[in-house]
Amino acid sequence: MSEFKLLRVNLSSQKVREERVDEKTLRRFLGGRGLGAYLALKEIPKGADPLGPENKLFIMSGPVTGTAEGFEAGRTHFVGKSPLTGLLGESNMGGRFAPWMRYSGYDGIVLEGKSDEPVWISVIDGEVKFHSAKEVWGRGTHYTEYYVKKQLNAKPNEGAVLAIGPAGENGVRFASLIHAGGRAGGRTGLGAVMGSKKVKAIYVYGTRKPEVVDEERFKKGVEHLKEKIGNHPVKKALNSYGTAVLVNIINKIGALPTKNWRKGTFEKAEEISGERMAEKYLVKTRGCWGCQIECGRLVKTYSPEWGVPEGSKGPEYETIFAIGSNLELSNLEAIIRINHVLNDLGMDTIEFGNTVAVLMELYERAEELGEKSEELKKLLDGLRPVWGVPNPVLELAYKVANRDGIGNVMANGAKALAEAFGCDCVAEARGMSLPAYDPRAIKAMALAYATSNRGGCHLRAYAVSFEVLGIPVKTDPLEVNKEKAKMVKEQQDFFASIDSMIVCKFNTFMTPSPEDYVDLLAGVTGWDVTADEIMEIGERIYNVERLFNVREGDPGDYLSKRLLEEALPDGPAKGETAKEALEVMLPAYYEYRGWEDGKPTEETLKRLGLQEFLYII
Amino acid sequence: MSEFKLLRVNLSSQKVREERVDEKTLRRFLGGRGLGAYLALKEIPKGADPLGPENKLFIMSGPVTGTAEGFEAGRTHFVGKSPLTGLLGESNMGGRFAPWMRYSGYDGIVLEGKSDEPVWISVIDGEVKFHSAKEVWGRGTHYTEYYVKKQLNAKPNEGAVLAIGPAGENGVRFASLIHAGGRAGGRTGLGAVMGSKKVKAIYVYGTRKPEVVDEERFKKGVEHLKEKIGNHPVKKALNSYGTAVLVNIINKIGALPTKNWRKGTFEKAEEISGERMAEKYLVKTRGCWGCQIECGRLVKTYSPEWGVPEGSKGPEYETIFAIGSNLELSNLEAIIRINHVLNDLGMDTIEFGNTVAVLMELYERAEELGEKSEELKKLLDGLRPVWGVPNPVLELAYKVANRDGIGNVMANGAKALAEAFGCDCVAEARGMSLPAYDPRAIKAMALAYATSNRGGCHLRAYAVSFEVLGIPVKTDPLEVNKEKAKMVKEQQDFFASIDSMIVCKFNTFMTPSPEDYVDLLAGVTGWDVTADEIMEIGERIYNVERLFNVREGDPGDYLSKRLLEEALPDGPAKGETAKEALEVMLPAYYEYRGWEDGKPTEETLKRLGLQEFLYII
Repeated sequence: MSEFKLLRVNLSSQKVREERVDEKTLRRFLGGRGLGAYLALKEIPKGADPLGPENKLFIMSGPVTGTAEGFEAGRTHFVGKSPLTGLLGESNMGGRFAPWMRYSGYDGIVLEGKSDEPVWISVIDGEVKFHSAKEVWGRGTHYTEYYVKKQLNAKPNEGAVLAIGPAGENGVRFASLIHAGGRAGGRTGLGAVMGSKKVKAIYVYGTRKPEVVDEERFKKGVEHLKEKIGNHPVKKALNSYGTAVLVNIINKIGALPTKNWRKGTFEKAEEISGERMAEKYLVKTRGCWGCQIECGRLVKTYSPEWGVPEGSKGPEYETIFAIGSNLELSNLEAIIRINHVLNDLGMDTIEFGNTVAVLMELYERAEELGEKSEELKKLLDGLRPVWGVPNPVLELAYKVANRDGIGNVMANGAKALAEAFGCDCVAEARGMSLPAYDPRAIKAMALAYATSNRGGCHLRAYAVSFEVLGIPVKTDPLEVNKEKAKMVKEQQDFFASIDSMIVCKFNTFMTPSPEDYVDLLAGVTGWDVTADEIMEIGERIYNVERLFNVREGDPGDYLSKRLLEEALPDGPAKGETAKEALEVMLPAYYEYRGWEDGKPTEETLKRLGLQEFLYII
Repeated sequence: MSEFKLLRVNLSSQKVREERVDEKTLRRFLGGRGLGAYLALKEIPKGADPLGPENKLFIMSGPVTGTAEGFEAGRTHFVGKSPLTGLLGESNMGGRFAPWMRYSGYDGIVLEGKSDEPVWISVIDGEVKFHSAKEVWGRGTHYTEYYVKKQLNAKPNEGAVLAIGPAGENGVRFASLIHAGGRAGGRTGLGAVMGSKKVKAIYVYGTRKPEVVDEERFKKGVEHLKEKIGNHPVKKALNSYGTAVLVNIINKIGALPTKNWRKGTFEKAEEISGERMAEKYLVKTRGCWGCQIECGRLVKTYSPEWGVPEGSKGPEYETIFAIGSNLELSNLEAIIRINHVLNDLGMDTIEFGNTVAVLMELYERAEELGEKSEELKKLLDGLRPVWGVPNPVLELAYKVANRDGIGNVMANGAKALAEAFGCDCVAEARGMSLPAYDPRAIKAMALAYATSNRGGCHLRAYAVSFEVLGIPVKTDPLEVNKEKAKMVKEQQDFFASIDSMIVCKFNTFMTPSPEDYVDLLAGVTGWDVTADEIMEIGERIYNVERLFNVREGDPGDYLSKRLLEEALPDGPAKGETAKEALEVMLPAYYEYRGWEDGKPTEETLKRLGLQEFLYII
């Protein structure tokens, strides 16, 4: 790979410009997440308003994107400044957008500036066009995808659409970017960044082929992955039950966040499990571009109350936790419908669910709110967000997307909602709500969440893999030790490279070593890379991301009070908090990283060749 | 009354201007509906886009508005060109807006032009201010009222707010104007006219007193009404059960439209009746300004699914039909919540319910739609509008207000939806859906609907009063005769004057003669009016309205096919259509009116002093 072709789209002037990122930079950051973070740090000015014209949205592929089938190389990475955290925002989306983007002639698209009028953009075999989006502004992503393809007379399987819903238009700080009906760049609110630029959708299509420098070695790398994945029991589990296979597993160890993180087990977990979904609602499985795992669920429902189109995208494990156990909601059909609506409105299901959970707790504890309780009542305008009742959740989806009443407060996220009512009832790190693994029951997740540069996230280090699933080795999830800090750090670095190549992280369950990717990366780029270099690139990326945060006033590596001070009352982790985990592991982690107080040292930056950013620390 | 003080607000220039309408014109049109129609005809240019800057919104009081208590003189009348019908649009709203408008110094406000940015307007003791509405644009009317009063530090009982919701902003063609949480200028879509001018809300407050010329005679007139109303059993019925007292009455005679006008009785009518509402959900009664009837319901609900604020506005009979029987929905709590949401989003419940009814029929008969059935499926995006199921109805409210997916088609009204899918399954006249009385079971209503200038309406002539309630005399609702045509014509004229004074029509159940209003009107104006003059003024108004329609290409006095050709299958009116009623009564009606082919003749116009409009016929 000798260059990375970026399409720069200036919305203010409606001018476009091609730019080539040189090979030297690529070898330092690969593409995807890494290159995005590097460019974001260089180009987005300090203190920029995430919803202002100075912010940028990087839509990135990586060197292996769209090259070969059998492992998952179809994902897209987004980078920008997050409207939710005010720090680095980034998100990774499945489906087939990035492959089609490369086929259209560009390895990445950068949205800059701000349009006056709503537009959508088509990129077809190198030709870029702006179209008025007046007709679809205000509408959902489902209709928008349909509309865009109709306008272009595109065949169903040709090209890909990326769209935002009303949430992105209305500056909901956890608005998502949606593709193919339900593939989401969900976290950190980059949908609102696209919305602030008044870009409703992007269509990409073309016939260009991505470059593979050393075909033979590349093929060897692909075959290696294909074979290891193809024979692995994890593939079978993901294919049979999707990510929701985790519901029962995580519930069993007492780590399934329930009732706004006040319990670790949900007595009705079985009813919202992947097994139940497969048994009653699954129509067929669906993979991203080139993927043999096919963890995606295409589902149907039966009741008139909770209809979805037959074969629409089913909820992931994270959504099932956020809309299900965490709200004590066990009606899987309702969850399927609400997930569908959230995708249509374009909102991160994790942040939305957590925000509703906070609201339900506020509503339950209204008497403790003092004079704020009247304001809550006023803003709720009669809605009764009660545990386990789906109707208000569905209505809240619309209210948040429209920023109406209580929805206008909720649109700023769970932490903002809790703060607005003076309640310490939120599970978050760096201002982003936590996903579906209680760190009090899976200790290494405490560190993973606290040190995640994009805020509370399970995908920067997925310590669940060793703590629960035994990949690559099984650890005791309730034990706290420094070795885990090292494992978290290494996973963060490894995943940063994986997100930059870009390969799906589910591959790493089955091919969990950087070694597994050496031939693949060397083949596609022609570089003589090693496993160590892959890890070093990941570490460089992780440091660049941290530098972005430090420059913007990073609030540091913490977990919110609920996890540090309130012990789990139930399940195998009864009595546990996440306090000790952080106290023991965070200092060890900083040592492994070469950081002081959460900041890279001069020595570390020099070691990673990041001297140009010394000014930040 | 020597003058009518109009405040002209030009939104394009943000300039305001006071104008006085002379006494001669007032004596010809009174105020309210009459003066509004006259000015609309003179000022709104032929062919004007209802949502363009050339349209105007007249917000009117009448000579008796806010003068004395004991009869209902608190209503507001709106006039403009209707986005729903393309003809004259007008609507009458309860509450206390018009009295406060008069106290603020103006008898009427005319919105003209179109603002670039969203604004709200305050009129306080003659002083007009424009405020940015950026903070509330996109929000519901409930929050908007709260916000406006908060901005001005207004006391709860001082002043009044008129607001639109997202439906009005998004050009929903049946968007309403909302005041006091649920008082609605619902029909003909004038909320969208206010929205097109980017006016979110108007606040009025002041301490000026309306003029009463002959205090003594006025007092005599007031006492007459007060006494007759106070002792009347209809007052008791309306006070006890609200307008929903009609559910059981109309169901009993087989005229309660059910399942999109395919039945005339609803087996679960009892469950959605005014009696049931009083028994289970009523918190207290509430009247408009100065009213002793208090037909308004303040309600509560119990279930978490269908919450409303305790004491919020309960649904009227029309809403209970539109969201209830016509959708075969018997869950009164759900109806209460949906009504609340429709008020918040700012939509006419009658047109919305009828549009959903058409959608349910389309969904049920999808197989008959041919190639359109795929499009319907696509636009529904999984929603299953099934008879009797409330959830999809609630979601459709949001989808229509946001003009998303199927909501974008529904936002143009029931007739437009039926036409889009090639289905003759709509009950309408002049493009507006019919209200809650099946004209196949109440024959005079067939004529009333067909000849209503604003389209299918029960309030231009309320033939139900004689056909069902026996006011002033009881007729046989299934009989067709020419005498009824005369009664309809006379009621139309009488009501046109009543809507121009402005007095609530419920008064006319108890004081059903123009004689009853002579002292009142003579007293307040100082004019030596007679009952005949009141009737003649009404006739003049009715002809002016008709002239507006004729100029805009009136589609004529018809009822849609469902009512003319499909016989009722059930109840006391089984086997009946409305065909004969129209065939017999319409020619007689034209004769009484002095019209030919639905148009006033030259002679009629001259008789009524409307020579200036001879150019139209």
